[in-house]
Amino acid sequence: MEQNLSDTIPLLARTPAALNALLRDLPETWTLRNEGGNTWTAFDVVGHLIHTEHVDWMPRARILLEFGETRAFDPLDRLGHVRPSQGKSLGELLEEFAEARAKSLDELRALNLQPGDFERRGRHPALGAVNLSQLLAAWAGHDLTHLHQISRIMAHQYRESVGPWRAYLGVMQCAGHGSA
Amino acid sequence: MEQNLSDTIPLLARTPAALNALLRDLPETWTLRNEGGNTWTAFDVVGHLIHTEHVDWMPRARILLEFGETRAFDPLDRLGHVRPSQGKSLGELLEEFAEARAKSLDELRALNLQPGDFERRGRHPALGAVNLSQLLAAWAGHDLTHLHQISRIMAHQYRESVGPWRAYLGVMQCAGHGSA
Repeated sequence: MEQNLSDTIPLLARTPAALNALLRDLPETWTLRNEGGNTWTAFDVVGHLIHTEHVDWMPRARILLEFGETRAFDPLDRLGHVRPSQGKSLGELLEEFAEARAKSLDELRALNLQPGDFERRGRHPALGAVNLSQLLAAWAGHDLTHLHQISRIMAHQYRESVGPWRAYLGVMQCAGHGSA
Repeated sequence: MEQNLSDTIPLLARTPAALNALLRDLPETWTLRNEGGNTWTAFDVVGHLIHTEHVDWMPRARILLEFGETRAFDPLDRLGHVRPSQGKSLGELLEEFAEARAKSLDELRALNLQPGDFERRGRHPALGAVNLSQLLAAWAGHDLTHLHQISRIMAHQYRESVGPWRAYLGVMQCAGHGSA
């Protein structure tokens, strides 16, 4: 069950516009509050999506294609977005994400991948052997994980306000699943 | 911890555009597949959002304001979207949702609610006494629940394709929480 570029690319292409439509100029209640403790805000998540766009997906695809399993991908700094996001508005981050994503997709299309390429293998620093198809599918899955997370962070802000409806609102039962 | 209309309305106003940006013209892999069994597709969810817009939120607010606790809200038919969605394209449903939501928000603004109104109580057919503030918060929470659900339905389509990355993708650990 391999990902198909004709499914993966349209999803990757839409995420920036979807986040822009959801978040731009939204009150800070939704965008600058987190789920408590050290958890992330929607603002943080958009910063993380920019960071992973720069260091994670296409850079890893290039390492895989160039070095195969002989060179592991660079580990991801999960706080790598903090400093570059400082002092920026959410609107600026949303622009930056859209530009970074468009550039990544141009690079992906320029690779002109052929059917045999998707089975080529690389080495993830923690997960071990992975192939290019899995990496591309995970890129799409990462967008969806963070869209899922943003909807949950936002819902958290109204967890008391909804009163007894809380029992009916699935997003308010979602414990966050650790990774995001 | 009451919802605030100046937070609730901007969120409600953005959901149709966010879903439109995410879903319009996306391959059917993402929009017409479900999570197995009788679960919903993204197409079904948009149909449900239209249905609840017509029968649930503003209609219930009006019953609450007119009858207080003396008349329970009409129960929601959770399959009420099935027949009205038949034969339509997802693009048509997204239009219909945007129109229905804009109309609801016009009606909500026209009520010109005053601070004291938010504490007025009505009767939910299953949950019992609820107030107007909770109803409005639940409307926003319902949007977020279904955005959360759509991201999970879509991620489900790549649960095998991502290979070992599955462990890192929170959305793929989300069991669905029964209600959505």
